[in-house]
Amino acid sequence: MLENGLEALVATSPINVFYSSDMCPYGDAFALLPLERSVEPAIITSISAPIPVIVMSPPWIRDVRYYGEFYTETRWAEEPLDKAEKMLVDVQESWEITRRRDPSTLLIELLEERGLIDCNIGIDESTLPKSHPFWNQIKVRLPAIETVSASRLFSKIRMIKTEEEIERIENAVKITEKAWEAALASAREGMTEKEFAFVFESTMLKEGGRPTSHMGAYGAPIAFGHRTAFVDLASPSYYKLRRGDLLRFDGGCSYMGYGCDMARTAVLGEPSDKTKSYYDALSEGVQLAVEMAKPGEVASEVFDAVVERVRKSGIPHYRRHHVGHGWGLGGYNPPLIGPRDDTELEEGMLLCLETPYYEVGFGGLMLEDVIVVKKGEPRYLTKFDRRLYPIGAN
Amino acid sequence: MLENGLEALVATSPINVFYSSDMCPYGDAFALLPLERSVEPAIITSISAPIPVIVMSPPWIRDVRYYGEFYTETRWAEEPLDKAEKMLVDVQESWEITRRRDPSTLLIELLEERGLIDCNIGIDESTLPKSHPFWNQIKVRLPAIETVSASRLFSKIRMIKTEEEIERIENAVKITEKAWEAALASAREGMTEKEFAFVFESTMLKEGGRPTSHMGAYGAPIAFGHRTAFVDLASPSYYKLRRGDLLRFDGGCSYMGYGCDMARTAVLGEPSDKTKSYYDALSEGVQLAVEMAKPGEVASEVFDAVVERVRKSGIPHYRRHHVGHGWGLGGYNPPLIGPRDDTELEEGMLLCLETPYYEVGFGGLMLEDVIVVKKGEPRYLTKFDRRLYPIGAN
Repeated sequence: MLENGLEALVATSPINVFYSSDMCPYGDAFALLPLERSVEPAIITSISAPIPVIVMSPPWIRDVRYYGEFYTETRWAEEPLDKAEKMLVDVQESWEITRRRDPSTLLIELLEERGLIDCNIGIDESTLPKSHPFWNQIKVRLPAIETVSASRLFSKIRMIKTEEEIERIENAVKITEKAWEAALASAREGMTEKEFAFVFESTMLKEGGRPTSHMGAYGAPIAFGHRTAFVDLASPSYYKLRRGDLLRFDGGCSYMGYGCDMARTAVLGEPSDKTKSYYDALSEGVQLAVEMAKPGEVASEVFDAVVERVRKSGIPHYRRHHVGHGWGLGGYNPPLIGPRDDTELEEGMLLCLETPYYEVGFGGLMLEDVIVVKKGEPRYLTKFDRRLYPIGAN
Repeated sequence: MLENGLEALVATSPINVFYSSDMCPYGDAFALLPLERSVEPAIITSISAPIPVIVMSPPWIRDVRYYGEFYTETRWAEEPLDKAEKMLVDVQESWEITRRRDPSTLLIELLEERGLIDCNIGIDESTLPKSHPFWNQIKVRLPAIETVSASRLFSKIRMIKTEEEIERIENAVKITEKAWEAALASAREGMTEKEFAFVFESTMLKEGGRPTSHMGAYGAPIAFGHRTAFVDLASPSYYKLRRGDLLRFDGGCSYMGYGCDMARTAVLGEPSDKTKSYYDALSEGVQLAVEMAKPGEVASEVFDAVVERVRKSGIPHYRRHHVGHGWGLGGYNPPLIGPRDDTELEEGMLLCLETPYYEVGFGGLMLEDVIVVKKGEPRYLTKFDRRLYPIGAN
């Protein structure tokens, strides 16, 4: 912020608000993060949002201003109340003061109160539509404020993960690995993708993870046989597992708002020679990516080396647009381990490293590991067997 | 569109693109919908998106233009290919033509190709950020085009549901009801909210539904006892079910992109007199809402009558900001059955009608039904017992 001459940052996208405050927002929400420690941060949120805050974990930002309408009766709350109930009573009371205002007005009043009226503030405008009333209101009511685009700055800050973020993703990985183990243990010739996916995802639920689904439209990212060539927004089908078939998943559950992205491939019975040699080549690529993922390395150089390694190790025609990416709240995060990303890797970046190969009429082979960049050995979040996992007969 | 003097609509939000094309988008995507039937519609999407399209259902729009990078090898596809594999080969081939362009450029080229260069086009700008390159590009390259905000128009069109939409939501409701039935059948004194929620959500998975989760941060919308007073973004806890406790859920699974929002309340053993009389009053409110949900009725008038009915039937202090809402892709849809919404109800609107009551230190009572507005009797999507469902001893 100092480098950019900013006195404060304003988060407006649900992901940046959640990241800044640990409060999962609902509807329009803002988080104000001043540069000076003496200036208090604050959140503006719909009254519909605070309940999860109460139940999960109260945000570290104490000044929360609620707009909108929601009635929870508190007048008859006589018995001893627990912590969450007490906090709900407090929320309802503080809401009475601000409920009639819209979120943009609340934000402008807040900036005035904090004396942030004649300075540069950074705002993550890339998710704030052109037609949002905020743009006009700030111009009219705080003409001396200069708003500066801070979407890239947020993205840069979020590249380096906090310990709390790493732990949540580590939990998501652990649960996903347990689910994959349970699903593999249940795999039998004749089992449908749907049945296998049910074991996978119900284990996630049992272990406290949330199965994920892009726009609620698709099922688990799981496929068998030639269908493993389809990338991972596909839904499990009634296709039945046959001897020699590949089994693949790519993705994972989420845990307290943080998902994971990892992949493993298994095979029922004996893999073909082509499968074996291709998988070995892809594995060598991931191994090199992990070895190179150190502070100071450049993303595009890691990419070039990994693609080259896979080509030399057994897939001469290997093509790929990236071999890994950052990961965090909201899924894909920078950097991209791709040909045009010159980001220098830094300690604390969380990377998903992968060398997928898809061939129509053959299948998809893939190994994806999740690590945290450190000096020396990286911190591995994925632990499950990296081999082309063999499943016995039956 | 005719009323608004528009020659074409452009959908840009993921929800409007999905709605317009039945293609679930990934990354920036546009759907062009010309007014004239002789002008062909088209989709612009990332190459990462087409796989679900292939596997689920090819979009009705045939002209799909892919940008971005994704490699699936097709050269060795010798064996007989199935329909999805064949379509994937086609996608890879057509992608070769457009892959180097960005989505805004593809859209502008498409408008030029279709002769839409000197007219008004409606665009759902409310999700297109101010900084999106599209705004500048269209001004420079197609200066004679007038862009008109069409966010409200999309929202108006989407209020009336198609038969396909109603069927998907009906499936989501059916699966949710089965899940609630299974969870109630498993309910025992001493069972935790987490255990109960697991039965609820694993049944959804088994039946082909997707459990939902706001930002992947929360668990099932289920609570017991006094915790039923918390609204529905809360997560199930280790709280153990006691005799006399309420059990409540509010929400539901999603099915092919369409969620559902329904609620039921149950009780373990005998409800208190207060619980019984309050629940009866709330039920009478929902019953009146269903009776009044007919073409020509005004949302705010339904709201007033329903709140009045609940007050007269046993909760004189009842307060509420709405007693129902439209529902569709993306969740809440207009109209809102609230005090300031003067929408006239129309045949084909899908409404979730509800009269929740939350009291700290007591609990939350709720019944929410899903109906489609029709002349005469509405079409009921929810079928499960509307009573304060009694669970026996054990």
